[in-house]
Amino acid sequence: MNFRSDNNAAIAPEILRALNDVNGAESARAYGDDEWSRKLDERFSALFEREARVFTVASGTAANAIALASAAPPWGAILCHREAHIERDECGAVEFYTGGAKLTLIDGVDAKLAPAALNVAVANNGGDIHSPQLAALSISQATERGTIYTPEEVAALGAVARTNGLAFHVDGARFANAVAALGCAPADIACKAGVDLLSFGATKNGAMAAEAIVVFDPKMAGVIERRRKRGGHLLCKGRYPAAQLLAYVEDGLWLRLARRANDLARKLGAAAERHLSAPVQTNQVFIKPGHANIAKLRTAGVEFYDWGAKGSGEARLVVSWNQSEADVEAMRDLLASLR
Amino acid sequence: MNFRSDNNAAIAPEILRALNDVNGAESARAYGDDEWSRKLDERFSALFEREARVFTVASGTAANAIALASAAPPWGAILCHREAHIERDECGAVEFYTGGAKLTLIDGVDAKLAPAALNVAVANNGGDIHSPQLAALSISQATERGTIYTPEEVAALGAVARTNGLAFHVDGARFANAVAALGCAPADIACKAGVDLLSFGATKNGAMAAEAIVVFDPKMAGVIERRRKRGGHLLCKGRYPAAQLLAYVEDGLWLRLARRANDLARKLGAAAERHLSAPVQTNQVFIKPGHANIAKLRTAGVEFYDWGAKGSGEARLVVSWNQSEADVEAMRDLLASLR
Amino acid sequence: MNFRSDNNAAIAPEILRALNDVNGAESARAYGDDEWSRKLDERFSALFEREARVFTVASGTAANAIALASAAPPWGAILCHREAHIERDECGAVEFYTGGAKLTLIDGVDAKLAPAALNVAVANNGGDIHSPQLAALSISQATERGTIYTPEEVAALGAVARTNGLAFHVDGARFANAVAALGCAPADIACKAGVDLLSFGATKNGAMAAEAIVVFDPKMAGVIERRRKRGGHLLCKGRYPAAQLLAYVEDGLWLRLARRANDLARKLGAAAERHLSAPVQTNQVFIKPGHANIAKLRTAGVEFYDWGAKGSGEARLVVSWNQSEADVEAMRDLLASLR
Amino acid sequence: MNFRSDNNAAIAPEILRALNDVNGAESARAYGDDEWSRKLDERFSALFEREARVFTVASGTAANAIALASAAPPWGAILCHREAHIERDECGAVEFYTGGAKLTLIDGVDAKLAPAALNVAVANNGGDIHSPQLAALSISQATERGTIYTPEEVAALGAVARTNGLAFHVDGARFANAVAALGCAPADIACKAGVDLLSFGATKNGAMAAEAIVVFDPKMAGVIERRRKRGGHLLCKGRYPAAQLLAYVEDGLWLRLARRANDLARKLGAAAERHLSAPVQTNQVFIKPGHANIAKLRTAGVEFYDWGAKGSGEARLVVSWNQSEADVEAMRDLLASLR
Repeated sequence: MNFRSDNNAAIAPEILRALNDVNGAESARAYGDDEWSRKLDERFSALFEREARVFTVASGTAANAIALASAAPPWGAILCHREAHIERDECGAVEFYTGGAKLTLIDGVDAKLAPAALNVAVANNGGDIHSPQLAALSISQATERGTIYTPEEVAALGAVARTNGLAFHVDGARFANAVAALGCAPADIACKAGVDLLSFGATKNGAMAAEAIVVFDPKMAGVIERRRKRGGHLLCKGRYPAAQLLAYVEDGLWLRLARRANDLARKLGAAAERHLSAPVQTNQVFIKPGHANIAKLRTAGVEFYDWGAKGSGEARLVVSWNQSEADVEAMRDLLASLR
Repeated sequence: MNFRSDNNAAIAPEILRALNDVNGAESARAYGDDEWSRKLDERFSALFEREARVFTVASGTAANAIALASAAPPWGAILCHREAHIERDECGAVEFYTGGAKLTLIDGVDAKLAPAALNVAVANNGGDIHSPQLAALSISQATERGTIYTPEEVAALGAVARTNGLAFHVDGARFANAVAALGCAPADIACKAGVDLLSFGATKNGAMAAEAIVVFDPKMAGVIERRRKRGGHLLCKGRYPAAQLLAYVEDGLWLRLARRANDLARKLGAAAERHLSAPVQTNQVFIKPGHANIAKLRTAGVEFYDWGAKGSGEARLVVSWNQSEADVEAMRDLLASLR
Repeated sequence: MNFRSDNNAAIAPEILRALNDVNGAESARAYGDDEWSRKLDERFSALFEREARVFTVASGTAANAIALASAAPPWGAILCHREAHIERDECGAVEFYTGGAKLTLIDGVDAKLAPAALNVAVANNGGDIHSPQLAALSISQATERGTIYTPEEVAALGAVARTNGLAFHVDGARFANAVAALGCAPADIACKAGVDLLSFGATKNGAMAAEAIVVFDPKMAGVIERRRKRGGHLLCKGRYPAAQLLAYVEDGLWLRLARRANDLARKLGAAAERHLSAPVQTNQVFIKPGHANIAKLRTAGVEFYDWGAKGSGEARLVVSWNQSEADVEAMRDLLASLR
Repeated sequence: MNFRSDNNAAIAPEILRALNDVNGAESARAYGDDEWSRKLDERFSALFEREARVFTVASGTAANAIALASAAPPWGAILCHREAHIERDECGAVEFYTGGAKLTLIDGVDAKLAPAALNVAVANNGGDIHSPQLAALSISQATERGTIYTPEEVAALGAVARTNGLAFHVDGARFANAVAALGCAPADIACKAGVDLLSFGATKNGAMAAEAIVVFDPKMAGVIERRRKRGGHLLCKGRYPAAQLLAYVEDGLWLRLARRANDLARKLGAAAERHLSAPVQTNQVFIKPGHANIAKLRTAGVEFYDWGAKGSGEARLVVSWNQSEADVEAMRDLLASLR
């Protein structure tokens, strides 16, 4: 039973079919000058009810780093949660792409940033030549603890960002899970809430390798294109990532896949209720059952990551879009059996 | 008729099938800890008759930049041909990944570097604290003019590199075309000739997006891994690029595809003989028939790039692995009809 | 009365005289190939009882950034105190020179790092490809709160560094004040305690613009030289900074100047005893007398910086090597009068 | 007899006196908030008859690199002469500060760029996402061959720059020698000719370590300030470099010093007339008398640099502001005696 991460899952059949279909064309112009790539902007502009530009890249790390490098100068401060993926899991990719910008870490319950804490961080920036310059705010939606920001919460952060001249970036590696859980329009937690740049993830939710930087400020597009090229993320055969993304959002596939994973995770959460270390709002379940229980799960053949500080006795279980019902049933029993 | 570039071509059926097959596994560990990725080192070590480490990335630009950044310090000089892809077509990716190394450009006939010219460039480096430090040699095989280096020629350059403490990198975006044309073992123009780092391209020759950094010096592996991660090229679903590369080299597929393209290009070359501006040795044909003839080709519906300096009256025709016989026949007639 | 910073002070007469003297030579070879520069290595090797290489730069920020860039790769983690100058006051210079390394911030009383806290930070590093690689430890001596590490304390941190393969760097912008206060040999809190790289400051304690990177590991020298050159800190007229540093350490001048400042600061500390927010161990005095008292000091014409979080009611007073006795007397009375 | 470089010379007495004078103030605010630094903008605005902002740095390399990094993005192309100091002698400082911009090298007689050659280089830039983006033009005045651009020539290059959206930078390490030789107003070869950024050198012509970035476009000032800080070139005791620059331009000192050096160089040039390899227009003399003659000069105790490609039999003689008449007389005789 593999609950390590949704990035362990295979490709959704609809997306694999799209890859096979697009291959029917013997040739297509390179570097995004093909019919699939050209549809992306239009398709995502419709999805977000706002003129948007879409740039595919090969990984979420690339999406985050290129987006933030386009929003923050090398001397910029990027405000984010202490547990943010950009801080914890990208080996300094943001620092690399920005040329050395600084992540200013903020605490917050369940991996979420609150406007008050953000305001304190802003106020504590020296504001002079010796301090990094306040440049961008980055949040994750869903968060690294599987929690979500409501549209109102995103908008409140967006307001603080605007007041302080910060670009507002969302790491949406699991954006689908958030939208599915909230039942809102994508725009409600993006451009309508003040978001300038969105790392729109598809890989964890059924694509092969398709992430997109969605930018709502057309002025940023030129710089993003340059950074993407220099990062080696402008693929010559652009139709393949484009086709993945088009299939992903076609007929609500992305939300169906995410909703299924969310629902199954909720079942696990119910079974593990007294051990939960964060509310189950999307497809991730965090439990803190202690070492003995964790060992019991491992012995039972469950694959998952330990979480939190070393020796914390905490674990993360991630449900994938294609997790089998059988897996979930078995896991539910296991969780219910923990003491 | 599209002779713009081999990167316009679709995916070879064998490789597409491999992608479909690998998707049979519901899940696999991420970041290269899967059975396909684990086979890569072994498979390429056999192919190159030497212990090799293989790192997949999403583009040839990424392969070149990460490889060279691992061989040259920020103050390094990387010696290459004036027409090298790393100089002309990567928007400064090498400079980005290295942190500002300098490309020292060397002239040479047919986009090839000669040992004598390389020695002159080495001698002209100031050799003091004010000059960039001689760090690496990079050649393209096949070259940007479709020409190839024989094993002896590579070895001669490798000897100059070794004498001067230069790491030796080969941009093998069209490595298959070179090996197919030379009829040699891959090692003969790689590790056996002193090459330390090879950008092994598959995308132009039938893959979707699969390039690999092949490194023959195991000490470099750790640094390459770090740079790949920070560049956003460590894909979570590593089995898909791995499966492409495995299928690509399985049963000599890569050489069959390349040989076909080379052969068809030779036919075009024969038809355009008196207009050739470089010898046709692989799958690229360079002609300099003047503006009227170029206009004639365009009018006939042929897609291709102008080449050389602005207004030079030169053109590049690239034959893809899946170029139709009909295309080639028609193009041959057209070329023969040029005055 | 200016207690803003010791970097507001003029040049010590002995050092100014040295500048005048060195100018007697009509010409001298550039870039460190002069008799003064050549003496530096020998002079500092004697001072630190160990073979050392010395590289002058124009600022402490440059010394710190170049030293750390030579010890940490772009994907490195540099462990330091949350209030470290490299984090708070250098606008990301370390990130710039390293190519994007990450500062991992650690809490500790009085701006000091404790071995236990350092061990926790080390243990919490993910240790995999997604986390920055543990690379260096940096402490400030004296600290940003004017406190000092004893030789035993430095050695204890040095032991943790060695155990974990961390390069050990000391930001010694006020190294003289620390040595003067401890009454130890310079080596006792440097190479003998496991320090690899020292930013040896002279500017705050009487020089014009003379800081030095002192490196006890000769293997690092080549890389430092390259980084210094590329940073624009290899001065052509190297004899002038060299002469400053030679005069600075001649006959114990540096310690006399520092001792005087320390002694005067202690007087202020005694007068402000009940408002002290950190122990007075060198030439800095931190008080937290609240807003009314701070306003009173300002009204009395005292120049100084507010300290700590916005609105904390805290202040920093720095005594310079040339602070007048009259200033100190007047300030003492003022401090004693605070309620 | 030292004709190695004008950067070997001592400090002019007027400038040394200014340093002594400024030290009379017991303390002054740091980081440019002192009376001397505050005068700089006004003083240079008057000198250039245009509102200018002035940023002191410790070296010409720093001035060039920070200025160009403020004008060119990381993916920018900076057009310059093949022999430019930024290409040849700064170990990649421009690449470091820009984050990897590319120098596009242009040939030209006597180290000068001609508008026609510049236009060709502009035309040959690919102009697409794969090519570096045309960003800046940089010339040296006086050039690395001691030659000068007339006001008309600078203006012609400025026109090409403006037409193509290039920022225009002048490396003025020997700006004084050019102005003195031309007898023009400084503005005539700077802001009035379309120059946006000037590296204004004083060190080679009598200062200790005082170079300035003079910027005529106030919008660039903020970015320059940030880059200067991160490079470690914002000195705390800013009054000392400021005082040097103020003394340097006071009462035409800079032009008197430069004129003297130019005049003496002209004498040497006259004596070496038949061996000159570039016209003597400022304080540098380039001769190509062959190896035997060069050996003869060295045997006579003359210090100088070989020049040009390895083994070219060429030499550079630089006359300093304080070169003794005796030196020049003796050298004149020696040169006249060459066969």
